[in-house]
Amino acid sequence: MTMHDLIRELHEPSASKIVLLVADGLGGLPMEPGGKTELESARTPNLDACSREGTCGLSIPVLPGITPGSGPGHLALFGYDPLEFRIGRGILEALGIHFEVGPRDVAARGNFCTVDDARRITDRRAGRPTTERCVAMCRKLQDVRVPGVELFVEPVREHRFVVVFRGDNLGDAVNDTDPQQTGHNPLMARAADAQSESTARAVNHFVAEAARVLAAEAPTNMVTLRGLARYPKIATMQEVYGVRPVAIAVYPMYKGLARLVGMDIADAGATLTDQVETLRCLWDKYDFFFLHYKYTDSTGEDGNFPAKVEMIERLDSELPKIRALEPDVLIVTGDHSTPSKLRSHSWHPVPTLLWSKLCRPDPVTEFGETYCLDGGLGQFQAKYLLPMALAHAGRLGKYGA
Amino acid sequence: MTMHDLIRELHEPSASKIVLLVADGLGGLPMEPGGKTELESARTPNLDACSREGTCGLSIPVLPGITPGSGPGHLALFGYDPLEFRIGRGILEALGIHFEVGPRDVAARGNFCTVDDARRITDRRAGRPTTERCVAMCRKLQDVRVPGVELFVEPVREHRFVVVFRGDNLGDAVNDTDPQQTGHNPLMARAADAQSESTARAVNHFVAEAARVLAAEAPTNMVTLRGLARYPKIATMQEVYGVRPVAIAVYPMYKGLARLVGMDIADAGATLTDQVETLRCLWDKYDFFFLHYKYTDSTGEDGNFPAKVEMIERLDSELPKIRALEPDVLIVTGDHSTPSKLRSHSWHPVPTLLWSKLCRPDPVTEFGETYCLDGGLGQFQAKYLLPMALAHAGRLGKYGA
Repeated sequence: MTMHDLIRELHEPSASKIVLLVADGLGGLPMEPGGKTELESARTPNLDACSREGTCGLSIPVLPGITPGSGPGHLALFGYDPLEFRIGRGILEALGIHFEVGPRDVAARGNFCTVDDARRITDRRAGRPTTERCVAMCRKLQDVRVPGVELFVEPVREHRFVVVFRGDNLGDAVNDTDPQQTGHNPLMARAADAQSESTARAVNHFVAEAARVLAAEAPTNMVTLRGLARYPKIATMQEVYGVRPVAIAVYPMYKGLARLVGMDIADAGATLTDQVETLRCLWDKYDFFFLHYKYTDSTGEDGNFPAKVEMIERLDSELPKIRALEPDVLIVTGDHSTPSKLRSHSWHPVPTLLWSKLCRPDPVTEFGETYCLDGGLGQFQAKYLLPMALAHAGRLGKYGA
Repeated sequence: MTMHDLIRELHEPSASKIVLLVADGLGGLPMEPGGKTELESARTPNLDACSREGTCGLSIPVLPGITPGSGPGHLALFGYDPLEFRIGRGILEALGIHFEVGPRDVAARGNFCTVDDARRITDRRAGRPTTERCVAMCRKLQDVRVPGVELFVEPVREHRFVVVFRGDNLGDAVNDTDPQQTGHNPLMARAADAQSESTARAVNHFVAEAARVLAAEAPTNMVTLRGLARYPKIATMQEVYGVRPVAIAVYPMYKGLARLVGMDIADAGATLTDQVETLRCLWDKYDFFFLHYKYTDSTGEDGNFPAKVEMIERLDSELPKIRALEPDVLIVTGDHSTPSKLRSHSWHPVPTLLWSKLCRPDPVTEFGETYCLDGGLGQFQAKYLLPMALAHAGRLGKYGA
């Protein structure tokens, strides 16, 4: 019996409300031995108060030692095992530009590249064209017609774009056409199963037409496609967890990930203050609220320790407004760590706080990585956080008599 | 998706170096209520310094409550789930005497026993003969010929020996011939699948010939075989983890276990000082070094608490030479606990320390069982230690976009 089977059996109707506040890349590291992390350095009176009243711990997004991308990191927080539910690169790329992928779509990441007269690739990124040129080239490709499928070509930036093939019964067991090295021709798409034959044909047709359309456009005179992926069929959070969920996010990628698991997507302004105001407005309409806060990650990726500290303090200052709504459960966590020291996502467990009136107390009095080691949640796999939230919200019945 | 599938996808080339120092049976217990364990009693300034700079925790070799043998204990530390990768008793016995088992081999543990005129077993261990007699009896059995297979008979000690059947397509689904009680005839070998028919025939032929050869040798006038096992097909650490590993061990069993997962086996002298010198000599040739230190286990098995403390202190004194090589990751752990108080392996979690420059700090300042409870690694399944080591060595890419 899987966790999902179990929760489907046990969830119960309730008027209780859960807020999942994801501070992207929240976890960090000290810059120097003996130092504090970003979160430990930040002045966070409101988070600290929550940690005293609630239960803390450290979340392992995928498995110990595994650094997650945003996709697996968020799926885990939504209660989906990120090793079981895999989102292909093409789909993530499409979500990232707010393309509304649907169940009849196969999406691919496209690259403009440069080929010589013998069609050998001489530059896999076409000399990194400007985004303006990317947009112009995509416009040309939008005129390509592929028999039997509807085609969408959308720019991302520089050499990157998205292609979506929409049609009936399109499989996604198709190889990348990028040979991964220069001096070789782009690869032909081949299907690894019967259902993907028509997809492979569509890919090859599209690439041949693209080569024709772009023939005079060197250095952007060819394309490669990779990460072909179908829109995954995922049971919604309504079905599995029995909640009415809404996402209040700014960046398209996170809206897309939320839509994958069946969340409604709210319109919200760009700041956390706007997002919290949206939360307030939607309070009566939903019972599960996913708030995504991006700037703890982006400052970490920039290696800007003081800026990440400031973004955490800004988050802290919005917390009273959320608590004033009186959620039954409030979770503050991250989808992964992004230590400023590493300027990238990392595998380090993520400080997590679960506040509710039903928490068993633990000794944690400040919210931070080291303090969370003493927390009542212990170190746990992120996919278990949502069942914990439901339990503390009185939304799960007893298993077995 | 399994952990191995995931790691195969994510491991990246790197010049970084990992040292896995296994102090066999490291974990212990106090002899008296209120006392300290062996490790806590030992003076270990170098391990303590590592614990301050690194991250500590407690490793669960198999599952909570499960006491592992050396095989499962080490497989877990090598990153192989010991419940998935099972090494048959015959193979472990052969590895333990440094017999180089290969992919065409089926190995069995043999016992000399005593039978009466009706071939009923009267003593399952033949009165525990001397090892000299065991050697002499094995020499007689080495003359036995079995059609279609190559046969090896090697003494272990007292009543114990190893038989290896070498041939093509020999299955190992064959029962033990030991009836497990006196007063019964040895059992006939029977195959549980088609591929094991020829193995069963070979076993029965060997046992019949052994009975003939040993007829006048009472009390060692018969043999039983058990734990028939083929050399397991295990993906190597190179394949799964992308490392070039070498084992620096003294005892044959540990060399054999290391060889099972694809490690090269170094020639090293008998002392830890010799082993560390070998490590130094091989430093440029490999990137993963497994050092096995036996004496923490053997002193624990002897129930000699002060001797185990001394062996731990000796280990500690060698640590600076290892650190002087500047590994990127240094792990000190055990394959299981061997408390002197119990004079045997036990299920108690194993104190573990992972040192690297990318460790998140934790409050641990001394290396010991109780202190490790506060450690950043928490209590974890031993099979996750290797992914953690790779992550801290910068050898794992990101999972998902």
